[in-house]
Amino acid sequence: MRALRLTGWGTPPELTEVPTPEPGPGQVLVRIAGAGACHSDIHLMDWTAEEAPPAIAPPFTLGHENTGTIAALGAGVSGWSEGDPVAVYGPWGCGRCRPCRLSAENLCERTGELGGLGGGLGFDGGMADYELVPDQRLLVPLGDLDPVAAAPLTDAGLTPYHAIKAALPLLVPGSTAVAIGVGGLGHMAVQILRELSPARIVAVDTTEEKLTHAKQLGADAAVLSNDEAAPAIRELTRGVGAELVVDLVGAQPTVELAGAVVRSGGHIAVVGIGGGAVPVGFGLLPYDATIAGPYWGSAVELREVLALAAAGRLRADVERFALDDVMTAYEKMRAGRLVGRAVITP
Amino acid sequence: MRALRLTGWGTPPELTEVPTPEPGPGQVLVRIAGAGACHSDIHLMDWTAEEAPPAIAPPFTLGHENTGTIAALGAGVSGWSEGDPVAVYGPWGCGRCRPCRLSAENLCERTGELGGLGGGLGFDGGMADYELVPDQRLLVPLGDLDPVAAAPLTDAGLTPYHAIKAALPLLVPGSTAVAIGVGGLGHMAVQILRELSPARIVAVDTTEEKLTHAKQLGADAAVLSNDEAAPAIRELTRGVGAELVVDLVGAQPTVELAGAVVRSGGHIAVVGIGGGAVPVGFGLLPYDATIAGPYWGSAVELREVLALAAAGRLRADVERFALDDVMTAYEKMRAGRLVGRAVITP
Amino acid sequence: MRALRLTGWGTPPELTEVPTPEPGPGQVLVRIAGAGACHSDIHLMDWTAEEAPPAIAPPFTLGHENTGTIAALGAGVSGWSEGDPVAVYGPWGCGRCRPCRLSAENLCERTGELGGLGGGLGFDGGMADYELVPDQRLLVPLGDLDPVAAAPLTDAGLTPYHAIKAALPLLVPGSTAVAIGVGGLGHMAVQILRELSPARIVAVDTTEEKLTHAKQLGADAAVLSNDEAAPAIRELTRGVGAELVVDLVGAQPTVELAGAVVRSGGHIAVVGIGGGAVPVGFGLLPYDATIAGPYWGSAVELREVLALAAAGRLRADVERFALDDVMTAYEKMRAGRLVGRAVITP
Amino acid sequence: MRALRLTGWGTPPELTEVPTPEPGPGQVLVRIAGAGACHSDIHLMDWTAEEAPPAIAPPFTLGHENTGTIAALGAGVSGWSEGDPVAVYGPWGCGRCRPCRLSAENLCERTGELGGLGGGLGFDGGMADYELVPDQRLLVPLGDLDPVAAAPLTDAGLTPYHAIKAALPLLVPGSTAVAIGVGGLGHMAVQILRELSPARIVAVDTTEEKLTHAKQLGADAAVLSNDEAAPAIRELTRGVGAELVVDLVGAQPTVELAGAVVRSGGHIAVVGIGGGAVPVGFGLLPYDATIAGPYWGSAVELREVLALAAAGRLRADVERFALDDVMTAYEKMRAGRLVGRAVITP
Repeated sequence: MRALRLTGWGTPPELTEVPTPEPGPGQVLVRIAGAGACHSDIHLMDWTAEEAPPAIAPPFTLGHENTGTIAALGAGVSGWSEGDPVAVYGPWGCGRCRPCRLSAENLCERTGELGGLGGGLGFDGGMADYELVPDQRLLVPLGDLDPVAAAPLTDAGLTPYHAIKAALPLLVPGSTAVAIGVGGLGHMAVQILRELSPARIVAVDTTEEKLTHAKQLGADAAVLSNDEAAPAIRELTRGVGAELVVDLVGAQPTVELAGAVVRSGGHIAVVGIGGGAVPVGFGLLPYDATIAGPYWGSAVELREVLALAAAGRLRADVERFALDDVMTAYEKMRAGRLVGRAVITP
Repeated sequence: MRALRLTGWGTPPELTEVPTPEPGPGQVLVRIAGAGACHSDIHLMDWTAEEAPPAIAPPFTLGHENTGTIAALGAGVSGWSEGDPVAVYGPWGCGRCRPCRLSAENLCERTGELGGLGGGLGFDGGMADYELVPDQRLLVPLGDLDPVAAAPLTDAGLTPYHAIKAALPLLVPGSTAVAIGVGGLGHMAVQILRELSPARIVAVDTTEEKLTHAKQLGADAAVLSNDEAAPAIRELTRGVGAELVVDLVGAQPTVELAGAVVRSGGHIAVVGIGGGAVPVGFGLLPYDATIAGPYWGSAVELREVLALAAAGRLRADVERFALDDVMTAYEKMRAGRLVGRAVITP
Repeated sequence: MRALRLTGWGTPPELTEVPTPEPGPGQVLVRIAGAGACHSDIHLMDWTAEEAPPAIAPPFTLGHENTGTIAALGAGVSGWSEGDPVAVYGPWGCGRCRPCRLSAENLCERTGELGGLGGGLGFDGGMADYELVPDQRLLVPLGDLDPVAAAPLTDAGLTPYHAIKAALPLLVPGSTAVAIGVGGLGHMAVQILRELSPARIVAVDTTEEKLTHAKQLGADAAVLSNDEAAPAIRELTRGVGAELVVDLVGAQPTVELAGAVVRSGGHIAVVGIGGGAVPVGFGLLPYDATIAGPYWGSAVELREVLALAAAGRLRADVERFALDDVMTAYEKMRAGRLVGRAVITP
Repeated sequence: MRALRLTGWGTPPELTEVPTPEPGPGQVLVRIAGAGACHSDIHLMDWTAEEAPPAIAPPFTLGHENTGTIAALGAGVSGWSEGDPVAVYGPWGCGRCRPCRLSAENLCERTGELGGLGGGLGFDGGMADYELVPDQRLLVPLGDLDPVAAAPLTDAGLTPYHAIKAALPLLVPGSTAVAIGVGGLGHMAVQILRELSPARIVAVDTTEEKLTHAKQLGADAAVLSNDEAAPAIRELTRGVGAELVVDLVGAQPTVELAGAVVRSGGHIAVVGIGGGAVPVGFGLLPYDATIAGPYWGSAVELREVLALAAAGRLRADVERFALDDVMTAYEKMRAGRLVGRAVITP
């Protein structure tokens, strides 16, 4: 089969022929229908050996946003059938620690000891004709969803969903949720906020075009990301601040904006990997405000994301590429010329 | 009556005679039985006008940890009688915003507009023969508790209680809670953790004497605060880290220790006002770990603290001083020679 | 002023002239703009002395769903001004117990000792030109809402809101919420479910007309209330059952339907006062399913209901009557000829 | 190997020789160290075919409270080694539905379709030299716990733990928890309440001996189960009622007592299978009080139970029997002559 292999740090990935894997006991082989291309893939391609996190090591096949159909079941796997449409849950943990037993393998206690973080992240992923999934617990039924449109939901949908779900008790009627950055994850965040909460949604981005898009998706207000953003948001909240700020960018100016507009008792989720940081100690944020850097989500949360999509309430903007054109997708991503999320369709 | 008045920023407080207030409609006059002396009083005494927070302005009577008996009821106050023993809830909010309606006046939305943060913090406090309480909602029944022993519970007890209560869902059997600093607030924190949760309690402080005290109060393990503290705590938690870290010191080394030992999905509460800060953004703390700077607690939480004390499960170490000796108490506090919490007994 | 007085059990109420009250210390006089007529008023009119609950005793003015403007402030009331538009929070508790301090006076620990349950329920209510409110804590700002349309929100809106809010953690994407009865409270319940949760909403009622209305308000499915209802709902939920059943009728057939369609771990809220009951013990409902009879809601929840309405997301169907025509409203209610909720507009 | 087989409904079980099973792919063979005997086993022995639940069918080996060591691993099982001490999680679900993915197989959505409820409950259990466990997810590490003492924790410990954990937010300082029945599950419940909450614990039973035992285990008050019990408990709670009632008996008089002493907003867990029932509808229990019949617990909760035991905070009273004497154990159970929980030690 074909696979986009990362063979070493600092070298470009190659689309090559590799043997199609056979599922061993407990494993499942998935024929890939959609494999989402993610900005973090570019980090993987660009990292030097020094920059790369020690939990991951090439060679491996890229692609951590995958959907498809079951091609073959290993011995002892029951409850699934060949042909079943599935999404592959991305973060692969030990399966035995407390978080893993709650389906939150994104928070596995043994991360770093396992040889990888998931398929496409140290283990072979879905930028290939087939992906070998090591355990049926990592599959989620896809139902009637279009597998190509659903692929990005496993990461670009699940990640903001997880961040927002943790803050839902704050989002009572009359509250405000701010989403900073309305790109790949942000256009999901706005929809998720709209469907899961009665909060007023304030979208922040750098262009009027993005803000218009956010309003179409359900944002109640839109604010340009500049020096006026913080006072504008504070005024929208009667000077009190926002109950939730989801920062999908995570750069220094955006985390500072988050800190400037969160209310006492509110929450900041820094989802974006832009490298920004706010100093936190007593009195540096409003009292009792919490801040966290969440990571991906749980398998049960992925079910919920797919249920939202199945109900027609969540939709990723998608641009399709054949597997042979995969590097074109990444080139367009680097150039900022993608409209929506790139999905490879082997 | 006598009152310890702060007449201006940067000048020492004076014990002087002032008229005994009379309660207006809706107000209650409390005859003080115990008024706790708090480290933050020393900040109040030492601040220059530039350093002081704008929400507070002298002159006012010091003392924000107060208990006593009702001396007189203003017109329209029902449900209370003269002679009732009461604790005075410390943070005085607007009484009308959402947090205030949930009894969390520590998070009042109108803080800063009211002329003060509470009795002894901009308004006249309890270092006096009487304190005028502006509304019956700021009273909590004291029952049979010794009012002198109970006075510090209204702040030194309530503050760590509030911080710990927010994290209780994390503290399942098998979890670990770390208390950094076993002084005035910390010796409360250890007891509260012991009574409210099955978590293993790890106390951290700079002297063996403090650690021995912590173990007597219920700590399961004790760790000296030095370079070995972080690896020691991580080893105690099988390398996973602690579900909760309550930092009662809040200085730079302690907040850094907190960040080094919290687990993914765990929580850090920086209660101490030591001025430390950790940078927070994506990937800087373990995934999904939250950090906050909580402040004081709600009136309903104060009821809970008093109920713990009434059940014999929480006790403040107290040293008593007559009102005429109040400055001696602060001198001993400055010199670090207090054993337990100083309480003034007019 | 005019007031609709209930002068004794078993006698019809009379619209008479009474002195306009003057607010004492801490009290507030409200000029009534809208006073909702509620089915429970008919119980009040019809009860014999034997049937009536001991916590209530005539004479008193009817009307417990009230909005208006502040006409006069008693001594010591601050933070409000004459002319402020307000909703009157209906359940009046002691103001001092734990539930009251959390604004949940519907669960006051001293209910039964106070002489009444609220204005219009033992104390003088809002079917009058003015209502005397005993404490400012019982007022909620109304903002720009139409006071007539808002009056029913204080009860017919707040009651299902409270019942639904308690179950929100169950209502994840992919879950199902069933609302039985789409009348005065039920047409609110459907809207509240739609705005607060991503659950699929199934409405149940006895006529196609009601079901059509439910779908217009946001129900995803509608089921006629007959022998086929339970199997139909179970099929809609893949045989698993519903996460939440809100029974706005509460009669024997409806509570039995609720018990037949709730899932393991789900929740049944019997809001309707139809007198039905299901036997509950081990194994009689699906495992871990809970059932409760909630009552009204908290003042903070009322704020949230009004915020939903202010955002245009919740609307009561209302029919207006002059105070002089109040008995006509009740006659139409008895005859089942009201379209929406009757509101008296003195 | 030897196994205690139930060969048909209405016939006594037989201790016979059967082939030792071999673990297939994904399966694990456990050498039994402790197999707890449970009252529900007696139901299994006594049921006629008409009485038995359809989800279970003989023949199968009894025993659903099992601990031991791993004897052999099937193909594809990783993360465990031969010799590892383990507890077997008792309720065996489909492993794929939402509750199962959260480790709550006690609430599996496919219960009834699987051919059994767990080992010893339709599938072969642990009253044998070995038990075949169908998936590693059903194992929980036992650590250094005595496997004989730990066996009853998997059911008699887990069941009340699950019931109590659901109500922990109610159990603030000053609250009251009532445990009705201080037998096999009840003596666990008292310890769990003591360790997990600051609530005052009131134990109810029919003999002074049981009440004395309850006080030794941590009950703060003890009440004989008679007509005076309800008024006594209400007086202990200032007339307000208890936040939590755990009924470990579940008979008609005990569920009625539960209903009579629960407070508004409180919770009743009917854990005992005594067949009692209370009618529930609007106004029949105090407002907002919930009632449920919980069942067993989740695998993650079992970890927590074992962690409590490992910390020395929870201990089952145990009486040991050789496998050849297993019927003697059940005879003593029928005769009410067991002291503590019977554990078979093959």
